[in-house]
Amino acid sequence: MAMENELVLRQRKVQQAMLQMQVDGCLLSVDVNLYYMTGRVFSGYFYLPVVGEGHWFVKRPNGLSADSISYIRKPEQIVEIFEAKGWTLPKNLLLETDEITYNECVRLQAALQLENIGNATTLMRQTRMIKTPYEVEQFRLSARKHAAVYAEIKSCYRKEMTDIQFQAEIERCMRLNDSIGVFQTFGTNMNIFMGSILAGPNAEAPSPFDFALGGEGQSSLCPIGASGVVLKEGMAVMVDMAGNYTAYLTDMTRTFSIGKITELAYRAHQVSIDIQNEMLQTAGPGTSCADIYNRALARVEKEGLADYFMGTKQQAKFVGHGVGLQINELPVMTPRSKEVLQPNMVFALEPKFVIPHVGAVGIENTFLVTENGIEKLTLFEEEIISLC
Amino acid sequence: MAMENELVLRQRKVQQAMLQMQVDGCLLSVDVNLYYMTGRVFSGYFYLPVVGEGHWFVKRPNGLSADSISYIRKPEQIVEIFEAKGWTLPKNLLLETDEITYNECVRLQAALQLENIGNATTLMRQTRMIKTPYEVEQFRLSARKHAAVYAEIKSCYRKEMTDIQFQAEIERCMRLNDSIGVFQTFGTNMNIFMGSILAGPNAEAPSPFDFALGGEGQSSLCPIGASGVVLKEGMAVMVDMAGNYTAYLTDMTRTFSIGKITELAYRAHQVSIDIQNEMLQTAGPGTSCADIYNRALARVEKEGLADYFMGTKQQAKFVGHGVGLQINELPVMTPRSKEVLQPNMVFALEPKFVIPHVGAVGIENTFLVTENGIEKLTLFEEEIISLC
Repeated sequence: MAMENELVLRQRKVQQAMLQMQVDGCLLSVDVNLYYMTGRVFSGYFYLPVVGEGHWFVKRPNGLSADSISYIRKPEQIVEIFEAKGWTLPKNLLLETDEITYNECVRLQAALQLENIGNATTLMRQTRMIKTPYEVEQFRLSARKHAAVYAEIKSCYRKEMTDIQFQAEIERCMRLNDSIGVFQTFGTNMNIFMGSILAGPNAEAPSPFDFALGGEGQSSLCPIGASGVVLKEGMAVMVDMAGNYTAYLTDMTRTFSIGKITELAYRAHQVSIDIQNEMLQTAGPGTSCADIYNRALARVEKEGLADYFMGTKQQAKFVGHGVGLQINELPVMTPRSKEVLQPNMVFALEPKFVIPHVGAVGIENTFLVTENGIEKLTLFEEEIISLC
Repeated sequence: MAMENELVLRQRKVQQAMLQMQVDGCLLSVDVNLYYMTGRVFSGYFYLPVVGEGHWFVKRPNGLSADSISYIRKPEQIVEIFEAKGWTLPKNLLLETDEITYNECVRLQAALQLENIGNATTLMRQTRMIKTPYEVEQFRLSARKHAAVYAEIKSCYRKEMTDIQFQAEIERCMRLNDSIGVFQTFGTNMNIFMGSILAGPNAEAPSPFDFALGGEGQSSLCPIGASGVVLKEGMAVMVDMAGNYTAYLTDMTRTFSIGKITELAYRAHQVSIDIQNEMLQTAGPGTSCADIYNRALARVEKEGLADYFMGTKQQAKFVGHGVGLQINELPVMTPRSKEVLQPNMVFALEPKFVIPHVGAVGIENTFLVTENGIEKLTLFEEEIISLC
């Protein structure tokens, strides 16, 4: 019953947005949107009219049963069901045009004889940006397990192991602590497996993906993260493994070292901590996301560290991003962001540095925007921790 | 140099197909297609004209350099580069219309002022269906590591553990044996993490995904596979974990048990082995993929096992599928398949059964179609192995 109310609350938020857009409804089929609106993933569509109750059009799995569920084999049957029920077909319909394929979209336009289509991807990403109290509790649960796993990282290390072996041991810890494994991203060309470990000079390798940092990866099919580097004295080892302990992802990075690393690396790491602490003091509802980026960059420039900020050969032009069912939700903290922080946004802040020959340093935390400020959800030691 | 020749060979195959289709070229951006054509994943596009050399339009990563590479920020710049180089813009262009988003496709059509677009998804899936000698060697390497990991499965078991804990230990073995982790599928709504373990009655849970069997999963965000079942005496435990040891995926399932299971379960398992052995004797170039399904089903019906075949509450209507860079490539072995086996196809055959209260039984192997028959690549003990 509690979950039912939660789903109704979410559907009302989407309907309110559609009312303002003057559209007839939305038809959703992307897994995270189905999950958000119905509480589960299925193969098929969820139709939500601007006013009234939603309806599920299900291909699979078998066995779901309710007045609000109809089974179909193909999208053309949606029209037949509308007619049989005496419902009016939508003319202006939102489809997930930034996510569903071209052929799927063209087929739906023809099957439903649509006059206009709009972008349900934007609608859903903007709605999902502001979290409900239930969702905030899910983040808190993920964050607690995330921190508990990070507390085990030191015990995963053994002398002379590779970054990949180190990561395999951490992944096992994650899975034994209820990580669901799958790691959801928005957009194409965003392959990554369970997160990233960057050790030593591998941190300098530029990546094709829109993540904060790169790394060569194990295979040119998935060129990001750990690459088989043997962990050696003097290396920084950045651990940015997924917080996928509930459907709501927390994002947390900590830096480890093999013995002592250079003074420059410690100094840059401290600047990352300082930037986070300053945000914690000053940010809250109304803070501009562009300002968050610009203030971080100004601090980095004042410290003379701009050449190392967010990469060396390729520097990411953001310092934070929303999190939720996907790791890269709205808002984004870039120099050109238009968004301002609003209560119940959840975002990750990750001012990071790549120090040539040493590796990546800095921290990342996930924050909740409260009524008066921001609250850190990912609570774990922030200094560089030596593994040996 | 060897790899360069390999890529040229693949590009020539695609060009030959385009010549028959009378199109001007194809513009690719999906990760597996970029990898297939260029040997790596990048953010951007690979353009291959029907005749002549291909060209890379790269957004990220920085630092790639060759005559055949141009950097762009947005797809509109592709036109400028064509003009600067004095190349003719394509009018009839193939785009990956079953994979790229609607908005991306519309943007490309406008940017390149295209007269007609065709389906590069079909082109690439059909080309990738017939493997090159280099690709076959990659499958052999994956298969050897796949089998080596399966030999360690028995040592992953401990009394009273859950299916998820069992899976976490197998995943660790996989990663320590060079599994690249990421598991590529074709199509939407195909979330799965590293493969599937089905223990006891969880095998009966129907799934929204187009895999052979279901399982409730750990989260309704990813409802497939292991669900937290405690492994108990009398259960069958089906292990279908990914063979992602190279970019080329092998697919292999073996069934384990906790002590003795029912006679029905052993009998059904033997029928799965028998079906595979019969195919090994009789299939080869020219064998119809529909026949492979129909012959398997006929054998199952003769044994009176149809109610358990490929599920109980929801039965998958296929018994095999091509494998490659993605786990679900062409051809597919369904009652309505049009394809026939051709030399250098690689496919998985998975006649499986779900026995109520016991679990899933049966095996899956990956086969190479040779000049005269089919060759099994995944060599590992096929009987049910008791874990205790």
